[in-house]
Amino acid sequence: MFFASDNSGPVHPSVMEALAHANESYAMPYGADVLMDNVHTRIREIFEAPEAAVYLVATGTAANSLALATLCNPWETVFCSTVAHIHEDECNAPEFYTGGAKLTLVKGDDAKFTADALREAVEKEETRGVHGPQRGPVSMTQATERGTIYSLDEIRAIAKSAKAFGLPVHMDGARFTNALVALGCSAAEMTWKAGVDVVSFGGTKNGLMGVEAVIFFDPKHAWEFELRRKRGAHLFSKHRYLSAQMAAYLDDDLWLRSAKAANDATARLAHGLKQIEGTTFVHEPAVNMIFAGWSRAGHQRLHDAGAQYYIWEGALDGSDPDEILTARLVTDWSMTDENIDRFLDLVRG
Amino acid sequence: MFFASDNSGPVHPSVMEALAHANESYAMPYGADVLMDNVHTRIREIFEAPEAAVYLVATGTAANSLALATLCNPWETVFCSTVAHIHEDECNAPEFYTGGAKLTLVKGDDAKFTADALREAVEKEETRGVHGPQRGPVSMTQATERGTIYSLDEIRAIAKSAKAFGLPVHMDGARFTNALVALGCSAAEMTWKAGVDVVSFGGTKNGLMGVEAVIFFDPKHAWEFELRRKRGAHLFSKHRYLSAQMAAYLDDDLWLRSAKAANDATARLAHGLKQIEGTTFVHEPAVNMIFAGWSRAGHQRLHDAGAQYYIWEGALDGSDPDEILTARLVTDWSMTDENIDRFLDLVRG
Amino acid sequence: MFFASDNSGPVHPSVMEALAHANESYAMPYGADVLMDNVHTRIREIFEAPEAAVYLVATGTAANSLALATLCNPWETVFCSTVAHIHEDECNAPEFYTGGAKLTLVKGDDAKFTADALREAVEKEETRGVHGPQRGPVSMTQATERGTIYSLDEIRAIAKSAKAFGLPVHMDGARFTNALVALGCSAAEMTWKAGVDVVSFGGTKNGLMGVEAVIFFDPKHAWEFELRRKRGAHLFSKHRYLSAQMAAYLDDDLWLRSAKAANDATARLAHGLKQIEGTTFVHEPAVNMIFAGWSRAGHQRLHDAGAQYYIWEGALDGSDPDEILTARLVTDWSMTDENIDRFLDLVRG
Amino acid sequence: MFFASDNSGPVHPSVMEALAHANESYAMPYGADVLMDNVHTRIREIFEAPEAAVYLVATGTAANSLALATLCNPWETVFCSTVAHIHEDECNAPEFYTGGAKLTLVKGDDAKFTADALREAVEKEETRGVHGPQRGPVSMTQATERGTIYSLDEIRAIAKSAKAFGLPVHMDGARFTNALVALGCSAAEMTWKAGVDVVSFGGTKNGLMGVEAVIFFDPKHAWEFELRRKRGAHLFSKHRYLSAQMAAYLDDDLWLRSAKAANDATARLAHGLKQIEGTTFVHEPAVNMIFAGWSRAGHQRLHDAGAQYYIWEGALDGSDPDEILTARLVTDWSMTDENIDRFLDLVRG
Repeated sequence: MFFASDNSGPVHPSVMEALAHANESYAMPYGADVLMDNVHTRIREIFEAPEAAVYLVATGTAANSLALATLCNPWETVFCSTVAHIHEDECNAPEFYTGGAKLTLVKGDDAKFTADALREAVEKEETRGVHGPQRGPVSMTQATERGTIYSLDEIRAIAKSAKAFGLPVHMDGARFTNALVALGCSAAEMTWKAGVDVVSFGGTKNGLMGVEAVIFFDPKHAWEFELRRKRGAHLFSKHRYLSAQMAAYLDDDLWLRSAKAANDATARLAHGLKQIEGTTFVHEPAVNMIFAGWSRAGHQRLHDAGAQYYIWEGALDGSDPDEILTARLVTDWSMTDENIDRFLDLVRG
Repeated sequence: MFFASDNSGPVHPSVMEALAHANESYAMPYGADVLMDNVHTRIREIFEAPEAAVYLVATGTAANSLALATLCNPWETVFCSTVAHIHEDECNAPEFYTGGAKLTLVKGDDAKFTADALREAVEKEETRGVHGPQRGPVSMTQATERGTIYSLDEIRAIAKSAKAFGLPVHMDGARFTNALVALGCSAAEMTWKAGVDVVSFGGTKNGLMGVEAVIFFDPKHAWEFELRRKRGAHLFSKHRYLSAQMAAYLDDDLWLRSAKAANDATARLAHGLKQIEGTTFVHEPAVNMIFAGWSRAGHQRLHDAGAQYYIWEGALDGSDPDEILTARLVTDWSMTDENIDRFLDLVRG
Repeated sequence: MFFASDNSGPVHPSVMEALAHANESYAMPYGADVLMDNVHTRIREIFEAPEAAVYLVATGTAANSLALATLCNPWETVFCSTVAHIHEDECNAPEFYTGGAKLTLVKGDDAKFTADALREAVEKEETRGVHGPQRGPVSMTQATERGTIYSLDEIRAIAKSAKAFGLPVHMDGARFTNALVALGCSAAEMTWKAGVDVVSFGGTKNGLMGVEAVIFFDPKHAWEFELRRKRGAHLFSKHRYLSAQMAAYLDDDLWLRSAKAANDATARLAHGLKQIEGTTFVHEPAVNMIFAGWSRAGHQRLHDAGAQYYIWEGALDGSDPDEILTARLVTDWSMTDENIDRFLDLVRG
Repeated sequence: MFFASDNSGPVHPSVMEALAHANESYAMPYGADVLMDNVHTRIREIFEAPEAAVYLVATGTAANSLALATLCNPWETVFCSTVAHIHEDECNAPEFYTGGAKLTLVKGDDAKFTADALREAVEKEETRGVHGPQRGPVSMTQATERGTIYSLDEIRAIAKSAKAFGLPVHMDGARFTNALVALGCSAAEMTWKAGVDVVSFGGTKNGLMGVEAVIFFDPKHAWEFELRRKRGAHLFSKHRYLSAQMAAYLDDDLWLRSAKAANDATARLAHGLKQIEGTTFVHEPAVNMIFAGWSRAGHQRLHDAGAQYYIWEGALDGSDPDEILTARLVTDWSMTDENIDRFLDLVRG
């Protein structure tokens, strides 16, 4: 019963097979492998973006930091949510990679921000000429760190606000496919057709071992990105093992199937929890993560049975067994109905 | 009628004389001049800090950025006010000099923050282990960017909060002496006796041509600071001309007299404005800067008469002559009663 | 016939099995996996260093850059060979990670430098007080970029020179085990017993998919390194797949067996080439890499037969079939005698 | 008898007068002062460059570092002399300001390098694609750190070599005017007409208190430079005092007259030394600096009489009074014939 994160589950068997297959021969290093050609082609097809430049790195933080560094001068500020991963969970990696840019936090509900809030934040910056930080890229997270998603209209409005000031738009898509499946739209619709310029297209949280693609719809920054990636020590010599994972991911809709499985698992979990009296929800479940509350006694039962997840607010040790504590529950492609049902039984008591 | 800033007035004649005097002979470069020995001695006396290490730079941003870089690792975050100069007016210089540290904005009234607000902000950071930014130094501005000041009790409480987490305390003292004169305490009481570790001790806004001292009460960082200053291109070859300014500043209480003159000028201005019906105040005047509002018609009269100051909120062009617009008014040592009274006459209409 | 690099061959089957095994269940992310505990224990045993702090990253450049950044202040200079990987092949990654430190190139034969040359280079730096770069760590590469190795005496002498100036010593061990096997000594003898403080302990070039360990014999920098790794985006969420590789590597002497196989293959190759009249050698073969020259006609035959390697000096297209061109030939654990013999036949013509 | 450096003499009286004059009234801060308009106009006239963008900073290291940072990406390398100030005397400031670029040292005689040596160095870099540092700007020093100068032909040839690779050319002109006077050409001829793109136009070593201009002949980088200057904490609030110095410098040919006086003083010194048997010269004197050797006994006499200069090679304390030690002797605008003659008398013994 692992609900701690979508980075604690196993790699999908198809991906393991692809790695084994890639291992059968020799290959050119540093991205010159044949598999990478396939990845490039497939991503361009899927995103309907024949000009796109595509690069692979092994961590989400690398994808985000390198993408932002390519878009952002050191004297600029990145506009993002108050709970953005780039702000809270990357130990100043964006500041490091950009050479000291700032992050301006845009407030909003449900771990999102609106086009209006963005406009206001952008307008507030740069009223001081050379003295203040200059306006830089806008970074939005889809799906968000709280398991919510931006609708297509919301993405379009945010990108429009950004473009009104000439600012590029980055999408942190660590859970890109979970959001895509939930929206039921195309990858192009959720990105460049809505005004997004660069995407961190996540794979690691969706069944890969450790691969994220950075996709530039306009390839003008391509060579700069390659140099930044190398200088950041994120260019792999045995690159084919990244390519193999990403190729398998895109093959036979594995990326979509895995995300759907993860989302469905959370939906089943949420459905079950809703039947249990006393359960509270922080957000309506949209993708593969929910924040739900139940009694401390319920948490204790789960803990004793070995269930793993984070108590987001509150702590297990406390005197009142009826106090409601909020849990963060995340599911990945590998979550079984059996595990969910067992979990629900334990909450039920 | 120059009320735009305390950086637009002339250098004090005593300082000009000191420069002329320093120019009479040859001197060793790069801080090895004899005048710097005097500065070192005098500052240690004034601050009652016989161990203090003292360095001169030419801009306030250099003083702040170099001081913070010495205190702050790149993976840490600096706690400061939402309107701190280091956040709003230094074009990411602190981020540049620290190698990419973050600034965490602590809210509060009157351009200040409380010890409690600081504690809350500090506690919120670093709940994520290696993933989030680590807690770094606390930077407070005395006097603040809005002309308010921290009381000694407030400084002590903030420093105590910082020390409870093992965090060093920096004071941005671009208007240090204006605050000191207003509080009527000693330099030691306002700094290390209250828990401050490093001060940017401003001179430029108080009658110098361009000199700020950075004072480390604990000299352990001295050599590192020297290397950072040189690497930042802030070590002057003809250093004696910085020393001469600072020596003159500290001589015969010029620093205190100049600050008192500036504060008194603002007090006279505020007193006069209070007599004028319809004038509003954002803060009670504490040092040499006030934010006050009166009618657009009044602003227009002043503008036509050549008065220089910033309209902080609102704009001169507008249809309603009675609308109240807020001005920022700053006075320095050179402001005459005559100028103030003429200004008041114009507001009066 | 892949002699291009030791990063183009397959991952060792035992490592693939370990990955498959690690994939059977859930695991805690970010290095908190149980496999990492084993790695930590094993490396401490092998290096006879019970205090050592051990970290895994995925690229050699990350290992070197993060290790050096931990040892080197931004105002210092790293002493290294003129052909060091950190100088020639990392696109300024050490400069990036250190925040702008310099590299001072120390000359020497066979891609090495002597203790005397180091001493001379160190003495030359820092004669300018605060003006010049300050002396920083010494970085030596074992085995070198030209396939040569430092003897234990040479390492000890270099470390002694460094320590005489209080400078820490880093070893870039991308081909650490190849050198170790060639010297026939223990890992402790080649490192901390000889005065080395930090090692980049390579795995990728010796049969892993992409894992290098950074080993600090003195753990005082441990937490700083963790923060630097995270900030550099080199902390893996699914860390267990790095741990699994390294654990398999250290199991049953796989690391030693693989390096020996690679060295033996080069020895066979070298032995064969020596029999062929007209073959020249740049260095005596010490590990798994040689630089040897033969006629352009020979290169052409190999090229036509699909052999892959770099012509280090000269070019295939040229009119004189008898001109001698130098090839760089690298072997890894997977090289077969058959391939070598076929290659030799083709050189022979 | 101060021959230690051209940064230890007094500021020219005309400059002091200009500062006093600038102090008579209020002025807009941060470069918006009227005097700066004059400076801009005058430099454009003098350099025959009506499009040039001109900025003032207070140190030569700031001028060089900011200029190079504007020309050079962090993954590139700057080509410069082995004894360039940017390499030896700026404590890694160029590396800091560029965000971690490298410096490639080009060898040559007399502290210079030739167009051929440059070409060779440039060709050697970037043979490794994304792996190695990329080619960046060329920086030449005129006059050099050894008091030699590049002829117009040499400058043109170097710039031509640079341009053949698309590389911009920077001139470190800390002693620009000394070289200009020596060559007897126009400022335009020595810079943009010869292919130079950006100049650090020094004033501090030639009678100013502390001002250097950075001149971009193509203004496309102007705004970026302003942001870099502010972010580097090198934008002065009381900017008019920089402007006043530079305006006085350019007025009535003060810059040319001061440089000529300094050069003439060195010529007189050199002429005198040549008459003294046993004196050796490292270079023929070209500007205001020579390296000359005479006996230890002579040095002792000078030292005892209070003469100040650096013994470049060797040390005063030593047993052999006849041993020849090399001195570096620098003269500025203020050096008197009397001082020189007295100095010569002492050498003579």
